[in-house]
Amino acid sequence: MTKATKVETMIWEGGVDGYLDLIDQTRLPNEMLRIECRDVETVWEAIKMLRVRGAPAIGIAAAYGVVVGLQTVPDEDEQFFARMDEVVNYLASSRPTAVNLFWALDRMQRQSASLRSELPVSEIREKLIDEAQAIHEEDRQMCHAIGDHGAGLLADVDGVLTHCNAGGLATAEYGTALSVFFTAQDRGHDLHVYVDETRPLLQGARLTAWELMQRGIATTLICDSMAAQVMREGRVQAVVTGADRIASNGDSANKIGTYSLAVLARAHGIPFYIAAPSSTFDLTIESGAQIPIEERNATEITHGFGRQTAPDGVQVYNPAFDVTPADYISAIITEQGIIRPVNEAKIKQVLGFA
Amino acid sequence: MTKATKVETMIWEGGVDGYLDLIDQTRLPNEMLRIECRDVETVWEAIKMLRVRGAPAIGIAAAYGVVVGLQTVPDEDEQFFARMDEVVNYLASSRPTAVNLFWALDRMQRQSASLRSELPVSEIREKLIDEAQAIHEEDRQMCHAIGDHGAGLLADVDGVLTHCNAGGLATAEYGTALSVFFTAQDRGHDLHVYVDETRPLLQGARLTAWELMQRGIATTLICDSMAAQVMREGRVQAVVTGADRIASNGDSANKIGTYSLAVLARAHGIPFYIAAPSSTFDLTIESGAQIPIEERNATEITHGFGRQTAPDGVQVYNPAFDVTPADYISAIITEQGIIRPVNEAKIKQVLGFA
Repeated sequence: MTKATKVETMIWEGGVDGYLDLIDQTRLPNEMLRIECRDVETVWEAIKMLRVRGAPAIGIAAAYGVVVGLQTVPDEDEQFFARMDEVVNYLASSRPTAVNLFWALDRMQRQSASLRSELPVSEIREKLIDEAQAIHEEDRQMCHAIGDHGAGLLADVDGVLTHCNAGGLATAEYGTALSVFFTAQDRGHDLHVYVDETRPLLQGARLTAWELMQRGIATTLICDSMAAQVMREGRVQAVVTGADRIASNGDSANKIGTYSLAVLARAHGIPFYIAAPSSTFDLTIESGAQIPIEERNATEITHGFGRQTAPDGVQVYNPAFDVTPADYISAIITEQGIIRPVNEAKIKQVLGFA
Repeated sequence: MTKATKVETMIWEGGVDGYLDLIDQTRLPNEMLRIECRDVETVWEAIKMLRVRGAPAIGIAAAYGVVVGLQTVPDEDEQFFARMDEVVNYLASSRPTAVNLFWALDRMQRQSASLRSELPVSEIREKLIDEAQAIHEEDRQMCHAIGDHGAGLLADVDGVLTHCNAGGLATAEYGTALSVFFTAQDRGHDLHVYVDETRPLLQGARLTAWELMQRGIATTLICDSMAAQVMREGRVQAVVTGADRIASNGDSANKIGTYSLAVLARAHGIPFYIAAPSSTFDLTIESGAQIPIEERNATEITHGFGRQTAPDGVQVYNPAFDVTPADYISAIITEQGIIRPVNEAKIKQVLGFA
């Protein structure tokens, strides 16, 4: 656990008067700076400015943010619960489209409400730290469970390719796709991980390569266009990525470029795996056709590196995600087990809805 | 021709006392600056600093550079031919690995040597301008012939994808892959061209998008990782790229990412074409296995645009080229005709070696 702790995305330091200590991800990979969030404004700013990012990590930060925000009021019932509403509304405004943010804030608010008639404020404070730490710990355990299930799939693999960042920086600790690699390492299996830089925002180059190197895993950075060549040369024998949203039939939306890797993997006879918690599944949609593809700003492509690299006025197509059809996915690794083959019946069975 | 002339890579202005006028490609796409090369040092610097780039374009610039370099000596036989040797050796040192550079310089030197006993220096000067313009014109005609042969292949195509820069900037005028699009336009067929930005050096974003926009062709820039999604959505119905070196069996080396496109095109039932002059074929090698893949500096990936975007010390794999097996190539478009299917016998037949 020592190695893991050094790069832990978030740490709660102290008791009811403690603070949230988190990595400023905007400074990576050039600087490893940690921020001490001792007031709710600092937590809000960290979420807003993407100093902490990734759906699970945002939820955890917001939960601790509630604890910090309540430190400014005395142990008096009226003031405490008025402040709770204020803090929750404030934090909810930091990234209004982040589902995990609302989920975590709601959980903190419900926990405090349920205790209002039972406990004094001083004890509710303790329970709220417990709740935030439970959210944190549940996520940590989810990541480890994904790693435990997935590591066995890579038993015969020396080289593996990943895309974007599905690592500890986006979660409590081990991440999803990266948890599979970290768990393999914990078991003494040294993988060589090839990392797509992941244009346009370079999460692979900036974050994933950094996380892997921090843990001493052999890491090679490539441009996205080199993945096919890396497969052809036999440098990798599997691909593992995360997912943002998975439909009932297993079609999986993830960072743009993932679908490309799945097609290339099949052409080279290499398995393509997705690692994602069960919370990623959206069983209200039948297939990937119902997943809207967000298009992002042209400047991410034309001015991505601090200077202009394309002509003025050029038209750009910048889909943030693509959808990989279930048929291309060899298996989906969840905290509840491995879904293989990937189809609706198997998904329901593994996730316990059969 | 008006539209074409405006963006012509190189123009010889005037007679024996004239000068070479060329686009400074290092300033594209942000600025359209032309350089007047009135002495051989300026030509040398333009080649050295990649202000003019692309094998055919370098050869043409060097030929005109010889003419400019000889303007400093009087019409006296000894001085003229001594200066010729000096100028040729000097220009040859500008990019020592560029085959077309030596070929063009050799052609200029042989032409002058063959005329030494027949004509006075004043008339040899005229003949050398003629020779440089012949090199220029032959390349222009080669580009147009590729366009003429290739445009018919896109008759039923609305959207097409290209990679890197196989355009007029690298040649006398129309380029190779881009010549197919320009010729289609000349025939009244409006294509929509999707351009891979082409990491790491972004030739697609910086040069190809610019050339297409200059000629009023509908252009959409994408990241390399988006090509599969663009195919899946039916936005393109063909892929056309250039090539750097083609083996006897049709295996084709080109900018890294080309092989990826060929595999993705097949998976989507889209034809994949290469447009290249017959000089690209190296019939001394049997297959792509004999083509060495140049690896370039890691900083192209880690520090591509003036700032660091990957961790200190990260290992990088940066192959400059990949090889697309002949089997993935629907046709090769040459100035001598279309090679289809792509195999040794058909190559020899079309290129006249059968």
